[in-house]
Amino acid sequence: MRRHRPRRAAVGIDLGGTYTKLAWVTPEGRVLQTRQLPSLPGRGPERYVRRICSRVRLWERASGRGLAAGGLGLAGDVDAERGTLRFSPNLKPFIGFDFRTAFQKRLGVPVAVDNDANMAAWGGYVLELGRRLPNVVCLTLGTGVGGGIVLGGSLYRGGTGTAGEIGHLCVEPDGELCHCGARGCLEAYVGAYGIVRSAVKLLEGPSGAGSLLRRFAPDYSGLEPKVLASAARRGDPAASNVWRVTAHYLGIGVSCAVVLLNPDAVLLTGGVARAADLLLPPLRRALSKQPFRTPFRRARLVFGRVPDLGAVGAALQGLEHADS
Amino acid sequence: MRRHRPRRAAVGIDLGGTYTKLAWVTPEGRVLQTRQLPSLPGRGPERYVRRICSRVRLWERASGRGLAAGGLGLAGDVDAERGTLRFSPNLKPFIGFDFRTAFQKRLGVPVAVDNDANMAAWGGYVLELGRRLPNVVCLTLGTGVGGGIVLGGSLYRGGTGTAGEIGHLCVEPDGELCHCGARGCLEAYVGAYGIVRSAVKLLEGPSGAGSLLRRFAPDYSGLEPKVLASAARRGDPAASNVWRVTAHYLGIGVSCAVVLLNPDAVLLTGGVARAADLLLPPLRRALSKQPFRTPFRRARLVFGRVPDLGAVGAALQGLEHADS
Repeated sequence: MRRHRPRRAAVGIDLGGTYTKLAWVTPEGRVLQTRQLPSLPGRGPERYVRRICSRVRLWERASGRGLAAGGLGLAGDVDAERGTLRFSPNLKPFIGFDFRTAFQKRLGVPVAVDNDANMAAWGGYVLELGRRLPNVVCLTLGTGVGGGIVLGGSLYRGGTGTAGEIGHLCVEPDGELCHCGARGCLEAYVGAYGIVRSAVKLLEGPSGAGSLLRRFAPDYSGLEPKVLASAARRGDPAASNVWRVTAHYLGIGVSCAVVLLNPDAVLLTGGVARAADLLLPPLRRALSKQPFRTPFRRARLVFGRVPDLGAVGAALQGLEHADS
Repeated sequence: MRRHRPRRAAVGIDLGGTYTKLAWVTPEGRVLQTRQLPSLPGRGPERYVRRICSRVRLWERASGRGLAAGGLGLAGDVDAERGTLRFSPNLKPFIGFDFRTAFQKRLGVPVAVDNDANMAAWGGYVLELGRRLPNVVCLTLGTGVGGGIVLGGSLYRGGTGTAGEIGHLCVEPDGELCHCGARGCLEAYVGAYGIVRSAVKLLEGPSGAGSLLRRFAPDYSGLEPKVLASAARRGDPAASNVWRVTAHYLGIGVSCAVVLLNPDAVLLTGGVARAADLLLPPLRRALSKQPFRTPFRRARLVFGRVPDLGAVGAALQGLEHADS
């Protein structure tokens, strides 16, 4: 009887301020399981690590696969070399804790630690683009706008691991306030909260008078990008304007990355990227007006659709470290 | 008698629209000779190559050093792999010509071909920073604003060799016209022509009334960054304002590069960088206001002073290729 190599999987942990997303992923990139748990940072990092590791043991037993590696993406400023969180407004009790050592001790496998946007970028590079293009700028469009950069087929981290913070490029000097405290950041216009702010402004202006959105929710309750996308698809003029404004600023941010990095692709993922049908045409038009043709012709614009890239990318990055 | 290894040198060629700068450089980075020749693109690329190569032969004989390698920096959009010029408004007769093969055939050594800003960036990385910092964003502040990126100790070129065009980052949407045809580029404010344009505007405004510059040259003849720097150093208020405006926009461009690339240093070279005393304090202030502290604390701001970095960097890049 021929013996098969033992089947293995990696765990990816996407630790956000409120929720943690876990993914159980094969070395080929197939996602076997995902799960969402509350992060509960107030209970401290040791209890957090124990709780996550019990879940991993359950998955191991249930799937009959051995653990090959782990990856942890943290929402904040991360020291990837030391495996610690340097700063995060929403995870203060976790700052400075040595996550890598704690997880490696409990799990007995190598664990990669990085910021969540880098992990999501790596996930997108592998699963959305199949590792075919060496230089990729990734944007995660959610409540905030995260970013990560893959150059020459490897995650590029910069001097302190914070490279790729494309959400905090200035796209409008002295513009709208960003959650980071600065004004005019890309995130302040393209993050979900920025889009809703633009919508409220437009709904209160002349184009808002006839909008369905205003008629059905005069207090703007439930105004979120998904609703704005449906309304725009039904021809609501104010909602369509919101996406034009969003695409305009997205165009400035993407142009900046293309001019500076001359990437082979720009990958847009996250919830807001589901409005690809509304964003792509005006974004393409904006980029086609750039006089520097060569880098703009090169950069393929890709809207991704794979969910949970933060957790899945963390698992894949863990495997990458374990193999190297 | 002990025989010494034969002494060698590399030639660097910085081919601009009007002039070509040549440098004769030792493998240790010592510049033995430089020379400026007219580029005369109208006479065609073959004659250009012959003319340059005769100069190299003269240097070889005069210095008693054998040629080890060559490097050519071209002012335009360059295909570094093929060694050709893709596009350049000022070097049209040279577009598409296979410079690498032509030079290699005549010189009998490996010749690296790249755009002039990449060559200058490499020169700055080696001679200004002594290769000590792995990730560096370089700006060449001259008539235009060129840029090049060194990551992990190597020149980063991007998908088509145009990475690092920091002069064409948008720093003011719908702002001043740039030579590239777009509006609001960094170059439109920080390139020498942009600085002079800002100066004329300020001299015609209220702060210009008492300016010495206006009294001595009411038609703005001879208004150039060097003159504006002297006037500012003597306390002329309009001239000081010009440098404040310039530093403001430089701050936006540099912030953008720091946020995206998290470099270990930002190196500013070229003629305009000689106004370091006027630019550095307001630039430091602008960067210190950024809420993302980690990358801004990391990025060292360095104003370079080595002349002819384009030609010298081309020679050093040639040696780099020859050695690898």
